[in-house]
Amino acid sequence: MGKKVLIVGGVAGGASVAARVRRLDESAEIVMFERGPYVSFSNCCIPFHISGDIEKSESLVLMTPPEFDKQYNIDARVYNEVVAINKEEKTVSVKNVQTGETYEEAYDVLFLAPGANAVRPRSIAGIDSKHVFVMKTVPDVAALTAYTKANEVKDVAVVGGGYIGLEVAENLKMAGYNVSLIEAQDQIMAPLDYDMVQIINREIMKNGVDLILKDSVQAIGSDEVTLASGRTVKAQAVVMAIGVSPENALAKQAGLELGVAGSIKVNHHYQTSNPHIYAVGDAIETTCFFTGQKTQLTLAGPAQRQARAAADHVYGRTYLNTGVIGSSSVKMFGLNSANTGLNEKQCQARGIAYDFAYIIPKDKVSIMPGAENLFFKLIFAVPSGKILGAQAVGRGNVDKRIDVIATAIMLNANLEDLKELELTYSPHFSTAKDVVNHAVLVGLNILNGEFKKVPVTKVRELVESGAMIIDAREEHEHKKSHVKGAVNIPLSQFRGRLDEIPKDQPVYVHCRSSQRSYNMVRALGQLGFENIYNIDGSFLGISEYEYFNDVTLNRDPIVTEYNFN
Amino acid sequence: MGKKVLIVGGVAGGASVAARVRRLDESAEIVMFERGPYVSFSNCCIPFHISGDIEKSESLVLMTPPEFDKQYNIDARVYNEVVAINKEEKTVSVKNVQTGETYEEAYDVLFLAPGANAVRPRSIAGIDSKHVFVMKTVPDVAALTAYTKANEVKDVAVVGGGYIGLEVAENLKMAGYNVSLIEAQDQIMAPLDYDMVQIINREIMKNGVDLILKDSVQAIGSDEVTLASGRTVKAQAVVMAIGVSPENALAKQAGLELGVAGSIKVNHHYQTSNPHIYAVGDAIETTCFFTGQKTQLTLAGPAQRQARAAADHVYGRTYLNTGVIGSSSVKMFGLNSANTGLNEKQCQARGIAYDFAYIIPKDKVSIMPGAENLFFKLIFAVPSGKILGAQAVGRGNVDKRIDVIATAIMLNANLEDLKELELTYSPHFSTAKDVVNHAVLVGLNILNGEFKKVPVTKVRELVESGAMIIDAREEHEHKKSHVKGAVNIPLSQFRGRLDEIPKDQPVYVHCRSSQRSYNMVRALGQLGFENIYNIDGSFLGISEYEYFNDVTLNRDPIVTEYNFN
Repeated sequence: MGKKVLIVGGVAGGASVAARVRRLDESAEIVMFERGPYVSFSNCCIPFHISGDIEKSESLVLMTPPEFDKQYNIDARVYNEVVAINKEEKTVSVKNVQTGETYEEAYDVLFLAPGANAVRPRSIAGIDSKHVFVMKTVPDVAALTAYTKANEVKDVAVVGGGYIGLEVAENLKMAGYNVSLIEAQDQIMAPLDYDMVQIINREIMKNGVDLILKDSVQAIGSDEVTLASGRTVKAQAVVMAIGVSPENALAKQAGLELGVAGSIKVNHHYQTSNPHIYAVGDAIETTCFFTGQKTQLTLAGPAQRQARAAADHVYGRTYLNTGVIGSSSVKMFGLNSANTGLNEKQCQARGIAYDFAYIIPKDKVSIMPGAENLFFKLIFAVPSGKILGAQAVGRGNVDKRIDVIATAIMLNANLEDLKELELTYSPHFSTAKDVVNHAVLVGLNILNGEFKKVPVTKVRELVESGAMIIDAREEHEHKKSHVKGAVNIPLSQFRGRLDEIPKDQPVYVHCRSSQRSYNMVRALGQLGFENIYNIDGSFLGISEYEYFNDVTLNRDPIVTEYNFN
Repeated sequence: MGKKVLIVGGVAGGASVAARVRRLDESAEIVMFERGPYVSFSNCCIPFHISGDIEKSESLVLMTPPEFDKQYNIDARVYNEVVAINKEEKTVSVKNVQTGETYEEAYDVLFLAPGANAVRPRSIAGIDSKHVFVMKTVPDVAALTAYTKANEVKDVAVVGGGYIGLEVAENLKMAGYNVSLIEAQDQIMAPLDYDMVQIINREIMKNGVDLILKDSVQAIGSDEVTLASGRTVKAQAVVMAIGVSPENALAKQAGLELGVAGSIKVNHHYQTSNPHIYAVGDAIETTCFFTGQKTQLTLAGPAQRQARAAADHVYGRTYLNTGVIGSSSVKMFGLNSANTGLNEKQCQARGIAYDFAYIIPKDKVSIMPGAENLFFKLIFAVPSGKILGAQAVGRGNVDKRIDVIATAIMLNANLEDLKELELTYSPHFSTAKDVVNHAVLVGLNILNGEFKKVPVTKVRELVESGAMIIDAREEHEHKKSHVKGAVNIPLSQFRGRLDEIPKDQPVYVHCRSSQRSYNMVRALGQLGFENIYNIDGSFLGISEYEYFNDVTLNRDPIVTEYNFN
């Protein structure tokens, strides 16, 4: 008889451990405990049942206990909760939550994959009402959809602007509800920087979701929620998605060491402080790829790799634990967004010197049907040029470009290493100098001091301070809409109008997407103008950055008319 | 006054040189010569005008000579052909092809970006008929569409199954013509291996294009073409797309050294044998990233980088020339295909020891709408595990997965380096253990000898020789369709039916997509069965591999019924 392997938790991490152990050891006795009714369900797909994109909630379950038994000889016990670990005896105490019976089960190796719990702050009045939901399990989503149908719910408040909150809000809206999305911070989607998020804000607004920022829920009533600002928001159902906390009850009970924010501490083999007990998935502490600092990251991809690595270690296989970089993606109505690595905020918080290239090329050859703007930000270390992160937002294939950067990051590439990067090209899918190539070249130009730039976040300040701004677009473009106060000197005319450009003050140049302004900036630099700045993102970037706050705050726009094309 | 820079050729390579020189040197005098009517047109988009995807042929022109003049102070001279280089005098002789006048123009630096010519073999009778077209320039496509409309063409023969031939055939079919695609080799799309191409063959057939392999055109008549086999194919118009040859007339005339297959020889800075003359793009000899061997590669991405590098060298900037890996992609009706690096044939030809992982996962979470099979082949060196190439075919985002591999290749990654690769994940875009992660793990298992496998190409032989094949799918799946002679022992039953599995002969296991068969193979290996092989790609792979030849050759299928889902 082989090892006796017990696993606490039967979703991503747990099920992956079980399957991997079976492949490594046909003789192992494997028992997987799950306190809920299902093992092996796709928790990442849960929001998509709300809209009917995934029609039946049962479809979310990828594999049943009988299938685990027959196909893998794995004993998957649903409604069985491990309530205690007896480290000395190497046993666990298990409670059958349906019968109330408890029993002991011995182990040679124990894996903890308990996941994380949705946070329900006790400070919110009414948080325990029956119309308040979280969105972590199949029963959670089934309960929400059953409730909203049975109670003729029209308005739903989604609290929390992370991935789950966003996907829940989108799918509720697609299902026909009036949806408010409430986020306490000044931005949704923490993995992105504030500038990139504004583009998504506009999409959310365009699709009729009421996005409320910098406000938090204080009380939940039967027909409305009351916010800290005093504002009330109509809602007959509320979904809490403000974050998760690691499920550490068992680990605490067993006296295992805890790490960051209550997560379970593990070594590089995913062993807890007890070498016979491993832990993987959303409950554990992980390591930041960049800094080696301890962190937490609740993503399915890393959970799967942790599960495999932990099982491998039990069987004497080595595994290099690189740490996590944080790669994710989300679809929000017609807009896709993806990111990897560090963002600006994280670089600042960690004291990492960085700079970034921000470009808005087309995602395929511009004359092809369906070519769209792709907003792309590439962050690199200064002075090494090491790739630190990237963020992409657009209607097309943003995940492709971010996956390329994720690969470059994990292979420790710097900008120079990527200069010759040869990606696939066909006009249907990309451009000959594709988004990543383009961003790398701009990044190198910035790193090498070939030109100066100001970010899109500073343009309002420039306009308000009366700075000299040149609009390098053609006259008909300028006429249609422009930055207030900008002087229109088209790229096609500037060589004959140099006397209009001052040398004794900073001059900021933009065009539509920075291609023409960049050429003008380079030329002016050689013509003796030393104080010339390219405006990142140009008119497209400015419009996207300013729009949401202009409209929601009823703020005076810095452009005569927005132009998003 | 700055340098006087002359450029021969005004498309991808030439226009990129011109723009880069201008950015580096505002004082340079730049003249770009183009013998045709247009500069800066998107040659890669030309086929898409045929179907109307790109409505107007003029849309293919991205920038006109007046725009070059005004925006970049570049003198773009269309209908001006450089007919001779006078190296000693550092001048070129130019002929105005409209007026017949010739003149001399002096240079400090000369760039050659003449491109390549479509091959029109003299050996084919009728090759010069007015209804025989090539597809390299805007006038080429305009001539074809004008001719087919004016002459009520119904049937078109496309000769050559490379990218241009495929795209032309697809777009002609979409425009309503009867299309034959004639390829002399046993497969279309040389950058892919024969096995991957079968999937595309099926798509082409399904969409009603008559795909004719291993046959070549001998004579072109007014209503039909005659093939070497004697077969005739109805065609009132013919498009020749059998390949290109480097335009080297000027280089020859000037006595510049030539390289592989008549291409222009350049050093690592893209200087020809004359240091004042550079050459870039489809006409030049390039270097293989893997072997350092000289080769030719007519792709737009490398051309752009060559242009930048050559211009940079003129201005003293260094540039690392990594060589090319060969990354490309193509859409063929509803199927996308992409590839990078070396394929099996190329590894064999170069004597590189390799192995490969062939997997058929879903391209997003299987329960999400629009999830599709993705056929993925990852080729790596043995024993180093160094990534050599990959090929992907499917209805979804194949280019993303190939771009990740292209990045890994250029950063010299091996399989171990990619084990922890953290890509973006959302159920809309990918899976938690996405295609590349999956392929890397399978590759490592193969490299480490964890299991044995036979490729999909060998299954017919196994069936015909009466080998012991186990179908590990469930009974209802087997009943619906199966490999002839395969014994159905489902993964869910095999542990109780071990006595049915022989130990004294090789046993080959398949399921639907190899997930279940792989688990069975691992288990059997541990249960003392030493001669167990997993069948690559399993039933899905076998069906795709066999279908086209079965149908077109009226061959006896090795499955009772095809199953592509």
